Amino acid sequence: MHRSLRSLQRLNRGLLALRGGTAAQKRVPAPAPVRMASSDSYRIEKDTFGELKVPSDKYYGAQTVRSTMNFKIGGASERMPIQVIKAFGILKRAAAEVNKDYGLDPKIAEAIIKASDEVTAGKLDDHFPLVVWQTGSGTQTNMNVNEVISNRAIEILGGKLGSKDPVHPNDHVNKSQSSNDTFPTAMHIAAAKEVHEVLLPGLQTLHDALAAKAEEFKDIIKIGRTHTQDAVPLSLGQEFGGYVQQVKYSIERIKAAMPRVYELAAGGTAVGTGLNTRIGFAEKVADRVAALTGLPFVTAPNKFEALAAHDALVELSGALNTVAVSMMKIANDIRFLGSGPRSGLGELILPENEPGSSIMPGKVNPTQCEAMTMVAAQVMGNHVAVTVGGSNGHFELNVFKPMIVKNVLNSARLLGDASVSFTNNCVVGIQANKERINKLMNESLMLVTALNPHIGYDKAATIAKTAHKEGSTLKAMAIKLGYLTEEQFDQWVRPQDMLGPK
Amino acid sequence: MHRSLRSLQRLNRGLLALRGGTAAQKRVPAPAPVRMASSDSYRIEKDTFGELKVPSDKYYGAQTVRSTMNFKIGGASERMPIQVIKAFGILKRAAAEVNKDYGLDPKIAEAIIKASDEVTAGKLDDHFPLVVWQTGSGTQTNMNVNEVISNRAIEILGGKLGSKDPVHPNDHVNKSQSSNDTFPTAMHIAAAKEVHEVLLPGLQTLHDALAAKAEEFKDIIKIGRTHTQDAVPLSLGQEFGGYVQQVKYSIERIKAAMPRVYELAAGGTAVGTGLNTRIGFAEKVADRVAALTGLPFVTAPNKFEALAAHDALVELSGALNTVAVSMMKIANDIRFLGSGPRSGLGELILPENEPGSSIMPGKVNPTQCEAMTMVAAQVMGNHVAVTVGGSNGHFELNVFKPMIVKNVLNSARLLGDASVSFTNNCVVGIQANKERINKLMNESLMLVTALNPHIGYDKAATIAKTAHKEGSTLKAMAIKLGYLTEEQFDQWVRPQDMLGPK
Amino acid sequence: MHRSLRSLQRLNRGLLALRGGTAAQKRVPAPAPVRMASSDSYRIEKDTFGELKVPSDKYYGAQTVRSTMNFKIGGASERMPIQVIKAFGILKRAAAEVNKDYGLDPKIAEAIIKASDEVTAGKLDDHFPLVVWQTGSGTQTNMNVNEVISNRAIEILGGKLGSKDPVHPNDHVNKSQSSNDTFPTAMHIAAAKEVHEVLLPGLQTLHDALAAKAEEFKDIIKIGRTHTQDAVPLSLGQEFGGYVQQVKYSIERIKAAMPRVYELAAGGTAVGTGLNTRIGFAEKVADRVAALTGLPFVTAPNKFEALAAHDALVELSGALNTVAVSMMKIANDIRFLGSGPRSGLGELILPENEPGSSIMPGKVNPTQCEAMTMVAAQVMGNHVAVTVGGSNGHFELNVFKPMIVKNVLNSARLLGDASVSFTNNCVVGIQANKERINKLMNESLMLVTALNPHIGYDKAATIAKTAHKEGSTLKAMAIKLGYLTEEQFDQWVRPQDMLGPK
Amino acid sequence: MHRSLRSLQRLNRGLLALRGGTAAQKRVPAPAPVRMASSDSYRIEKDTFGELKVPSDKYYGAQTVRSTMNFKIGGASERMPIQVIKAFGILKRAAAEVNKDYGLDPKIAEAIIKASDEVTAGKLDDHFPLVVWQTGSGTQTNMNVNEVISNRAIEILGGKLGSKDPVHPNDHVNKSQSSNDTFPTAMHIAAAKEVHEVLLPGLQTLHDALAAKAEEFKDIIKIGRTHTQDAVPLSLGQEFGGYVQQVKYSIERIKAAMPRVYELAAGGTAVGTGLNTRIGFAEKVADRVAALTGLPFVTAPNKFEALAAHDALVELSGALNTVAVSMMKIANDIRFLGSGPRSGLGELILPENEPGSSIMPGKVNPTQCEAMTMVAAQVMGNHVAVTVGGSNGHFELNVFKPMIVKNVLNSARLLGDASVSFTNNCVVGIQANKERINKLMNESLMLVTALNPHIGYDKAATIAKTAHKEGSTLKAMAIKLGYLTEEQFDQWVRPQDMLGPK
Repeated sequence: MHRSLRSLQRLNRGLLALRGGTAAQKRVPAPAPVRMASSDSYRIEKDTFGELKVPSDKYYGAQTVRSTMNFKIGGASERMPIQVIKAFGILKRAAAEVNKDYGLDPKIAEAIIKASDEVTAGKLDDHFPLVVWQTGSGTQTNMNVNEVISNRAIEILGGKLGSKDPVHPNDHVNKSQSSNDTFPTAMHIAAAKEVHEVLLPGLQTLHDALAAKAEEFKDIIKIGRTHTQDAVPLSLGQEFGGYVQQVKYSIERIKAAMPRVYELAAGGTAVGTGLNTRIGFAEKVADRVAALTGLPFVTAPNKFEALAAHDALVELSGALNTVAVSMMKIANDIRFLGSGPRSGLGELILPENEPGSSIMPGKVNPTQCEAMTMVAAQVMGNHVAVTVGGSNGHFELNVFKPMIVKNVLNSARLLGDASVSFTNNCVVGIQANKERINKLMNESLMLVTALNPHIGYDKAATIAKTAHKEGSTLKAMAIKLGYLTEEQFDQWVRPQDMLGPK
Repeated sequence: MHRSLRSLQRLNRGLLALRGGTAAQKRVPAPAPVRMASSDSYRIEKDTFGELKVPSDKYYGAQTVRSTMNFKIGGASERMPIQVIKAFGILKRAAAEVNKDYGLDPKIAEAIIKASDEVTAGKLDDHFPLVVWQTGSGTQTNMNVNEVISNRAIEILGGKLGSKDPVHPNDHVNKSQSSNDTFPTAMHIAAAKEVHEVLLPGLQTLHDALAAKAEEFKDIIKIGRTHTQDAVPLSLGQEFGGYVQQVKYSIERIKAAMPRVYELAAGGTAVGTGLNTRIGFAEKVADRVAALTGLPFVTAPNKFEALAAHDALVELSGALNTVAVSMMKIANDIRFLGSGPRSGLGELILPENEPGSSIMPGKVNPTQCEAMTMVAAQVMGNHVAVTVGGSNGHFELNVFKPMIVKNVLNSARLLGDASVSFTNNCVVGIQANKERINKLMNESLMLVTALNPHIGYDKAATIAKTAHKEGSTLKAMAIKLGYLTEEQFDQWVRPQDMLGPK
Repeated sequence: MHRSLRSLQRLNRGLLALRGGTAAQKRVPAPAPVRMASSDSYRIEKDTFGELKVPSDKYYGAQTVRSTMNFKIGGASERMPIQVIKAFGILKRAAAEVNKDYGLDPKIAEAIIKASDEVTAGKLDDHFPLVVWQTGSGTQTNMNVNEVISNRAIEILGGKLGSKDPVHPNDHVNKSQSSNDTFPTAMHIAAAKEVHEVLLPGLQTLHDALAAKAEEFKDIIKIGRTHTQDAVPLSLGQEFGGYVQQVKYSIERIKAAMPRVYELAAGGTAVGTGLNTRIGFAEKVADRVAALTGLPFVTAPNKFEALAAHDALVELSGALNTVAVSMMKIANDIRFLGSGPRSGLGELILPENEPGSSIMPGKVNPTQCEAMTMVAAQVMGNHVAVTVGGSNGHFELNVFKPMIVKNVLNSARLLGDASVSFTNNCVVGIQANKERINKLMNESLMLVTALNPHIGYDKAATIAKTAHKEGSTLKAMAIKLGYLTEEQFDQWVRPQDMLGPK
Repeated sequence: MHRSLRSLQRLNRGLLALRGGTAAQKRVPAPAPVRMASSDSYRIEKDTFGELKVPSDKYYGAQTVRSTMNFKIGGASERMPIQVIKAFGILKRAAAEVNKDYGLDPKIAEAIIKASDEVTAGKLDDHFPLVVWQTGSGTQTNMNVNEVISNRAIEILGGKLGSKDPVHPNDHVNKSQSSNDTFPTAMHIAAAKEVHEVLLPGLQTLHDALAAKAEEFKDIIKIGRTHTQDAVPLSLGQEFGGYVQQVKYSIERIKAAMPRVYELAAGGTAVGTGLNTRIGFAEKVADRVAALTGLPFVTAPNKFEALAAHDALVELSGALNTVAVSMMKIANDIRFLGSGPRSGLGELILPENEPGSSIMPGKVNPTQCEAMTMVAAQVMGNHVAVTVGGSNGHFELNVFKPMIVKNVLNSARLLGDASVSFTNNCVVGIQANKERINKLMNESLMLVTALNPHIGYDKAATIAKTAHKEGSTLKAMAIKLGYLTEEQFDQWVRPQDMLGPK
């Protein structure tokens, strides 16, 4: 009980820290003080800068602790995305497997593999406290991973945490690797997985729901709007068909950016030469990562480019930006078409998901559209951050890596999640307000276009101008002016004949 | 006649060049070949790289010609903004006046002053062929100015063009100056003038027109819209009053950014130390520029910052960006409120400025809103370009100067021009569609709010819900349900009492 | 013990949730299932959509739970910034005080005040689970606050959670308020506090440290660099003085944007009219908020603008963007000047904060510069998100509110934190490598400039050209060419005389 | 002669107008006043708004003149890009050919074809005075084209300008078309042509030059730099090889975006339905455009998407943005590697293209790098403008069309032109400063890495640390410490063995 209460206290503190405080400099307490309740809850670790206290219940080591002391920027909500950590788990496993082939002690390799799998499975998530705003190479996160895996592997093999024996974070976990090639590799693995696990399924869900609506609405003829003004008719199915096409192309655009994301830097080590690796290491690691993820990763054909630039992620971010543009259009249309209930366009009825105003029944706020358009704006901003970071690499290493991957992952996840939320809580429940659509349609002056071949442009124009001036319908005015009969009007003015070429 | 025809041919060619061709690399022919019709239309000038042919009817010299040969980027539409050239005219005059005080031969000084005035007056505009995409310090444009002024001054004094005698481009026109301090000085002069001559008058024009409309519309009560959905009422004057406030603040924001734009780098010379200037030169030049422009220019308190960074223009661009955001909101609202004529919101009637579709009378496209929102988008983009350029300065000199000033000037002018166009061709002619406004107002279910104090929330809610469900009016439903009499409804539900606190 | 273990389990789950999972759609489990271990850990609450289970240890109510179900977007790291929640605590207290003056039952008012203070103090942080990506008005967070405060107030008064008696979330906590005016008010309070508590102190810290360095380095003369190329000398103090000026202006820019941030929307209620408030309410609330925060808040002169637009925060974001531009310049300069140790510029020695490569001693990675420049890139991106959101408001309400405030707060905090980290871990420890600086200085060919007045430009040029060609020093070449004696050279070429006007 | 002089005067005035003035509202005089010298230089044209004077030497008509009166925004440098006009020439020809197949009088069709060809050939460039900042659909430019082609066709057929007989601008030139589908079609044609004629050739030129340099430099071993700090060696050829890869991928990225740009909206007419066209028209027009341009244009599979959104150009702009990011990296590296001549990195010698400072020989300003990085910043800004415009389409028509195409064309041309300029004036002339490269290489402490396998990490570290501390070379220190012999050092420390895996 004593232990569980202490853990509880620690967790409580952790929880507060995770939630993110606001007091300027003390918000991200170095892990050490937080867990300094009693001397027996620490172990002492050393690095070349001296001794440091490491919480005894954490697998990380001195370099991780030192980073938390040197980078008190932004608090817990600014942590390195967990997807990067999990991608490192995959990479470290792959490297250990290949290193075993090249002679690494199988016992050590197996322990590394087991520990790496735990990282990938999310079992060790709270052993990764570092924030994005660290060194621009992500070295400290690579070391965080190396420390956690080596300590966990030591534990598996019955050793003593912090002893670096029999599994050394650098010599074994990081073998044939450098932060300079592992971090970009983890970036690409994380980005590709997020795209495949969250973004593309989300977009497909949205696509399918919109396509179903396009089919459902295919016979509903409505007024078109160009320049936000009344125009010639189209079917509501055609209107939704435009959205379907946008989402279809969103998926294609993302996929078109992936080939270069599938290229992995692993094997380039410090500057891209592959110094201290063996011939074939790069290819084998990429193969292993491909096998572990089911994604078509390959080794980057040019490791210098893969370390010094992150053009592939800038490109992917550009595709995400285009998706955001499409989403903004679609969500805007739907909220305007659903505006009302009395004083808006009112052609669509959107699902009610939560109480509107306590005063006015019938008020539906298009909240899912709002979440989606906010996401779209965020993705456009993230893209600029990625662009600026991508453009500022120098020489053999771009050092905006953590910031770049954070933004790409954020964009992919927000778009993916928002697509699902938007689909489930809005799109699938959209109903056409046929009465309203029909009324607007029939009142429209645009239908006069159909009379041109029968009575000529001039008379048609006179009908429309006079109807507009007097607030009359086209039909009433046409008959009143004596240009045609009611029967002729009904025969000639048929919106359903205006939906395509002849 | 022979001469006039030749001039005509040359002008024709120039015109075509100005219009901007598309053939990839030959679009901006170096000036030399263009005027190579006969050998007597050239003079030979030398610089340290050798001889160059200079068109005999141009005042510029070898360094200008060389720049046209080395920077064939973008064509004539990418020329250094003429406002920068004119600002240089002011600066060169001011420097000559001060140099005269410090001992420059008065005859030379006076000739420089006269030539500089011609530059400022726009009499020599076609002697400045260089594009923005040159050296990032703007050195070549500074030399272009020095060459033109020295040659024109030589001509005034009866000398021979290209002889550099008696007025030397470097020793006299550029005396106590460096490109490194003159170009930023010209940037600030040009930006401040554009702000005062185009942007602020444009915004004031728009402000006054919107304020007049707010007054005109102050008694028109209409439905409010939040989340694009029906909400409680406000007056159309209040709605326009929000726009007035946005434009009022736009003006304030621009003005708030100006103090740092009024700081001039002149006197900093090569790296900000003021090497090769005299004590007092910087202050006197700033005083002269202030006198010549009527704007409160002062010498920059820290010349190192003034050369190495362009934060002041990034800040101004940020203010322009905020103005763009306001304009986007206002123009969007007006086009949506004016949408229709039958199937939109239709509360405003916008002026018709040009034939709409040849088919449908009454179709008013809100084209001025469209121009304004396109301008807003452009300004947001320009701002990112300025931000990226501003952030990439290194050591003692930011070398994104021409790009930065181009974008700031473009944003200021587009916003200023568009404000005037939008005002004259849209805002002043906006009419309220009172009938439509009143109809929407009376049909609104939101008015039920006013019944709460009299019959309680629950009964009020029942009225509204049932009215919504049955498509009835509040009044009809309230009476039908027997909760109140027609007289009571008319007495209690008064939109005009819902426009402010009690 | 049983209870503590259960709490521990729950906390563990919460912790994992906070950390942010990656499984696509199930990552943000609705609170309900998470705590569904036993039936007694719930209470049932109702809203107009039906019954919902609310965790019995949470103060929030049905509308909060419903939001977690409808907006599974982004996970725990995307929560509404806690600063907004705390700002709401201040606002709700202020409103309760003013409502008491206008007749609210003092007992209820006092309970609300006490509960609001707990929100502000951060005691109830884990009762606010909602994410940014909700309704664009922030209504759900306003209701989350209303629910938590009313339930906590009920508890204080001995009532039953969820009973809405004697303290009703809408009628009492939200009295005279609407989400439409409270959320923007909380946005401004949160932004102003973050600016004052994190950003400005951070910038001041950086300013003072740079100013101290400028003073320390004032007598060290070094080569200047323009276009990244060798130029005339300046002192290292002058170079740092440029940075000092940039940070000084950063502070001024932020302050210049604040007046409009101090304007509060409170009192505008639903569309800006102030419907259902009393005359004077708006002013009194602003006064109370000012008193509670010590910041000069006032009521917004135009509530329509304050709800429909967020230009004030776009403006503040523009100022933050300019600060980011300055930071990018400064951090870039410092890392390049500190590059080496052997093959870079090497003029500065930056503090070593963590082990560099395990292979190469002496390798100092400028990690603080890297964190700062990554932050700068992020702020530029955040600014675009804010710009896009700010520009897309329609009619009486901008519905990008949560996204806007998230980005502004993020930028302010990252810049503030990074300034402190950069100062403490880099700037204060910077040393000038005087030997290196002196060596580069003495080898520079630029010093030849000083000979112009003595031997003329042509001979000086010959010295420099020949020295460059033969790789010699100026002095050796000048003597070798016979243009002057060693004594003359030493007398005439004095860098310390080249640092200012004469 | 009289006539030529008058023309000359007119041209002069046109030239001034084209150059762009600064006086706020009078800068873009409506064409009418400009040519109002005598009554016989006009013809009167009518549209539904009344009579207008049209310059008698211009082919355009009333709608063009009206646009110049209503949109005085930005002046001549803001004209609709001439590439759009020429693309319209291609489209109008293609449409005439197809219309002829569908029954248009062959005589009229042939005249339209001839006139269209003149537009495409650039013979009528000065008949297109409209600016970008017009209606957001580009309708006025479509009408400008229709007017010019119909009048020119009338002239060809011997008719009277302005009579609309026998070639009517709407009925014949615009037959089966709408601005809503022609303008996006012209956007895509113009963008695709600019990409193929300017951008891709420019990038290929740069690619080939960099590849040649990579080959030339393949045996030069140099120090690597990560975090801007000294790192392990690589070859200069490898370093340039990274740039080659970036440009290679730039080309691939652009190409990957093109399939959706090749899709043409033509045939969608007003809202995408194809009303008033014939079945097959869309496909045949796309075929004709493909034949005329040699580019694989097809008809868009979904015309609703093609009118309502411009995602394809946002996507292309994203690719251009990625290219800009690559260019920024490459140009930055080259200027830093070429910095000096004495106090920089100095590994590269860049060509001198223009006189540097008049004082200091040997000062090479990397001006081509500066032009390129300015272009890169501009493209990033243009991309945001395109993104904002693309995201703000509503219903059946995006009305940011002119702004979007302007920015895409500007980005494509600037990147293409700058690539050629950068190649010809910088890359091809880059020389390696082998002596300097070798010196830095030999002094580097990083080479100690090679000793690890021979004397162990600890002794190697001692050598490096001591050498760094005492400013010695590795070799000298290694021998002094007695860890190895000179022969051993020379045998073991071989940079050429550090360039790849083993």
